Amino acid sequence: MRATLMYGAGDVRVETVADPAIEQPTDAIVRIVRACVCGSDLHPYHTMPTQHHGQPMGHEFLGVVEQTGTDVTGVNAGDMVVASFAYQDNTCEFCRAGVQTACVHVGFFSAAQAELIRVPLADGTLVRLPVDAGSELLPSLLTLADVYGTGYHAAKQANVGAGDTVAVIGDGAVGLLAVLSARQRGAERIILMGRHKTRTDLGREFGATDVVAERGDEGIALVRDLTDGGAPKVLEAVGHRSAYDQAVGIVRAGGVISRVGVPQYEEAPVGFASLFGRNITLNGGPAPVRAYIDELLPGILSGTADPGKVFDRTVALDEVPDAYRAMDEREVLKALIRF
Amino acid sequence: MRATLMYGAGDVRVETVADPAIEQPTDAIVRIVRACVCGSDLHPYHTMPTQHHGQPMGHEFLGVVEQTGTDVTGVNAGDMVVASFAYQDNTCEFCRAGVQTACVHVGFFSAAQAELIRVPLADGTLVRLPVDAGSELLPSLLTLADVYGTGYHAAKQANVGAGDTVAVIGDGAVGLLAVLSARQRGAERIILMGRHKTRTDLGREFGATDVVAERGDEGIALVRDLTDGGAPKVLEAVGHRSAYDQAVGIVRAGGVISRVGVPQYEEAPVGFASLFGRNITLNGGPAPVRAYIDELLPGILSGTADPGKVFDRTVALDEVPDAYRAMDEREVLKALIRF
Repeated sequence: MRATLMYGAGDVRVETVADPAIEQPTDAIVRIVRACVCGSDLHPYHTMPTQHHGQPMGHEFLGVVEQTGTDVTGVNAGDMVVASFAYQDNTCEFCRAGVQTACVHVGFFSAAQAELIRVPLADGTLVRLPVDAGSELLPSLLTLADVYGTGYHAAKQANVGAGDTVAVIGDGAVGLLAVLSARQRGAERIILMGRHKTRTDLGREFGATDVVAERGDEGIALVRDLTDGGAPKVLEAVGHRSAYDQAVGIVRAGGVISRVGVPQYEEAPVGFASLFGRNITLNGGPAPVRAYIDELLPGILSGTADPGKVFDRTVALDEVPDAYRAMDEREVLKALIRF
Repeated sequence: MRATLMYGAGDVRVETVADPAIEQPTDAIVRIVRACVCGSDLHPYHTMPTQHHGQPMGHEFLGVVEQTGTDVTGVNAGDMVVASFAYQDNTCEFCRAGVQTACVHVGFFSAAQAELIRVPLADGTLVRLPVDAGSELLPSLLTLADVYGTGYHAAKQANVGAGDTVAVIGDGAVGLLAVLSARQRGAERIILMGRHKTRTDLGREFGATDVVAERGDEGIALVRDLTDGGAPKVLEAVGHRSAYDQAVGIVRAGGVISRVGVPQYEEAPVGFASLFGRNITLNGGPAPVRAYIDELLPGILSGTADPGKVFDRTVALDEVPDAYRAMDEREVLKALIRF
């Protein structure tokens, strides 16, 4: 099959590799219909040392089940399915508690920008979709694999509800879908911090009431002014230390900073001057998107939510290297791969 | 009047100073009946540079209202009252949200180891107690000023409820009252991390089911073993960085670290390897004890809760310098000052 491999920073290639095969009785093989490039794929695109063996890439996909292991009972060959970016048994203590990314059997997909993929723990990971391969809903359904559920996780961890004032840091796909999620949960005022107009325009379409393009102290002062002292709920969808500092700067006393941007730092201020003195809650983490698929699917099927708007370019598999470049240069927000 | 002043590390004196007087119409003057020395008073006792003018000490007291400003309507001269360690209006947005320590008019008492004290915002700060100056309940009622409400804040922020497994870090008065609070909220298993047997024995009396005396990696391994992978709710009642690291080490994926020990550090790990990767929530802060007095008072009055057991020595005001020494040398857990 054809698959995307990264050989080092800036070096993405599409090559012919061996087809995946069933390895465990709980596995399934899925023929991918749609996949995409994630903002997090750009981290290795910047930093990966050159290597001789390419690293398979991609963790978001939907497709048609081609084959199932003998223990798989929840899906059958021919089913259209979407997978969460992490695979899990969906039965252990942590899965039952809604923290599927801490499943005792958790693993993370990393070969989904390809024609076929092996899905471990298929029963806990794949969700059947009541559409066919020609559906116009496929882009939105694909966001259930990661970015929609991740944005939703930010809003849910912050317990966003009716009438809330929320600030969202980051105008990438996750930030924009955090805006959509906050709006769906009833937030009244949603301040989006981002400086790319085409993206923040989509943010307004998703429900942002205010956009703050400024960063650093200036951005903090503007949000504090707009909110008369800080936003009670801050959704951080970037992951850089500067975004954390921004979150601490704009959060209201007694408020919450919910992070879904993967931290590119380990240490950060949490003491009296930053979090403790004002009783700030810090939470979030890798989104248990499997937990949210059932919750978010009806809105997509009914057309009330259109998270697929985050895809602003569609490419064929062979064009994936250029999609990385275009996303890296911010020419493209998020690239959809159509097989 | 006689009052306690600190002149530098290890240098506590009781001297005659001017009586406090009403300064604002919202003030009251209280004649103190019981006060105490707080674990947090030991921080300056270790580190305060020598100074010519003594720093008044103490933030926990109950007593009898002696005089009220013209705007005070909630208490009258002669009332027995307890104050929260922070004063607040108890009417602003933050107070209404239960974060009284972020009140727009907040301030912190620092002259309560004395015969008289001026209480700003008396209506928002003082709570009448239905006992007289001879009541045997006074020690327990005094804990409402800080340590009981602070221990309770830890349990409440962690949302401790029926059947929970909780780990409490620290066997000081706050840690022990976090144990009591967790038990009152229905926790089934309470692991107390502390190594002073007389204290952990009191912890068992308050409801601890297990005691772990070991610290560091050994202590972490023991708690993880006892809980089969970590405690879902960790109450951190120390404030040193080592206690934070301990909390990160023993918390279960998807769990919460609720801090009430005042952090003696500003930066700490919060990234993928510590909090984010396992969806850990970090919260807590200075306890809004005013919010909890109404909730905790009935248990003391009915005798179902006896938090005053944390006082293991009673001193007269002139003996306060020795009480500091005795607490610092861990000869005493918490010293009650009887006037």
